[in-house]
Amino acid sequence: MSYRIGFGIDFHQLVEGRDLWIGGIKIPHTKGALGHSDADVLLHAICDAMLGALSLGDIGIHFPNTDEKYKNIDSKILLQETFKLITDKGYEIVNIDSSLCLEAPKIKKYSGEMRETIARILNLSIDDVSIKATTTETMGFVGREEGLVAYANVLLKKK
Amino acid sequence: MSYRIGFGIDFHQLVEGRDLWIGGIKIPHTKGALGHSDADVLLHAICDAMLGALSLGDIGIHFPNTDEKYKNIDSKILLQETFKLITDKGYEIVNIDSSLCLEAPKIKKYSGEMRETIARILNLSIDDVSIKATTTETMGFVGREEGLVAYANVLLKKK
Amino acid sequence: MSYRIGFGIDFHQLVEGRDLWIGGIKIPHTKGALGHSDADVLLHAICDAMLGALSLGDIGIHFPNTDEKYKNIDSKILLQETFKLITDKGYEIVNIDSSLCLEAPKIKKYSGEMRETIARILNLSIDDVSIKATTTETMGFVGREEGLVAYANVLLKKK
Repeated sequence: MSYRIGFGIDFHQLVEGRDLWIGGIKIPHTKGALGHSDADVLLHAICDAMLGALSLGDIGIHFPNTDEKYKNIDSKILLQETFKLITDKGYEIVNIDSSLCLEAPKIKKYSGEMRETIARILNLSIDDVSIKATTTETMGFVGREEGLVAYANVLLKKK
Repeated sequence: MSYRIGFGIDFHQLVEGRDLWIGGIKIPHTKGALGHSDADVLLHAICDAMLGALSLGDIGIHFPNTDEKYKNIDSKILLQETFKLITDKGYEIVNIDSSLCLEAPKIKKYSGEMRETIARILNLSIDDVSIKATTTETMGFVGREEGLVAYANVLLKKK
Repeated sequence: MSYRIGFGIDFHQLVEGRDLWIGGIKIPHTKGALGHSDADVLLHAICDAMLGALSLGDIGIHFPNTDEKYKNIDSKILLQETFKLITDKGYEIVNIDSSLCLEAPKIKKYSGEMRETIARILNLSIDDVSIKATTTETMGFVGREEGLVAYANVLLKKK
């Protein structure tokens, strides 16, 4: 049995006039995440962790933010494409553990739907997808609600 | 043999008039960590990593900071309760690796006692509990000594 | 088969009048990383992850920045020494996944040479060394180009 570890981190600004997509779902909020795609910070961190586990580069290489093809794209499509890369290499996901750092809104009531969405795309059980959240106790750019950060760790296993 | 990966991150402000609890021990310092519990940033990150590895939610869900029961609670109790959740699921800890980001004080001389404290609660050898520390080179809120951050990674194994 | 997980994080300021060493190579840029050694943020994070996986302390303990021996030292030597510690304990590296957070310069065109450099020192295939990069979307001290951060995760296996 052959395991591999992956780590991802992603940042997006929070601005007025944008939707807030996190974990594949749209969350009601006064601000949204700024980015070339739908700026889903959690899905981007998970994609990066999956790519990193197999040394396949990063999300910026696979889905460049200068490419019109990815303008406002649903990041669930990027997650699907990343999953295909992993599968093609003969690997499956054991589990994903992720952490969101944001001051607001509270994401607890949305995390179940996020986990279901991610699990469905990655052909996992919901028990293999973890989403945690924390504030930064009002410190830094996250604390000032200027942006949000997501971390993801994945464990892969050779099929 | 079945492994799972977990990741945790936690933040607390440093303020005057509070004790500084890190890794289950009280450290002499001019400031302490602000929080509903004893605000032990390292034990909180480790709890979150353990919960995340088995997709059991996060520390905010299990031990809400709005619950009077957890007011000023010793985080070693939270670590003990988290360990029971892992054990009940049939998992044991392989190893924990953690990193503290703080400008001061130097924690090197306390890390042995922290590791012993954590290892005892989690029924581990001290060799399976790692605590590292770094400054942020005076940058950001950690650099300004306004707060501190802890990261933890855990590897679990099905018993 | 016995696995261990390790995590490392490192920070350095970016200042004029210093070279910018990342991943063992010198990168042309208007600023360089400030530190006692060559301040290679990526190699330091990888060293810390390797040390942490086996609870061997951290880079500050093994290579103190108060020791003249390490003044301006090439961090590839620190990586080599860290690798020896891991090997002496009977472990080998399965894979490394790392993330650089910096606003500039773009490191994509250098990451191949970085990976080769690291893989050669650690006796790995280049496919087992991943280097990803992201900006912080202009936020915080990384966004203001005052500094840079590196994260590394490693998976070790008992030989």
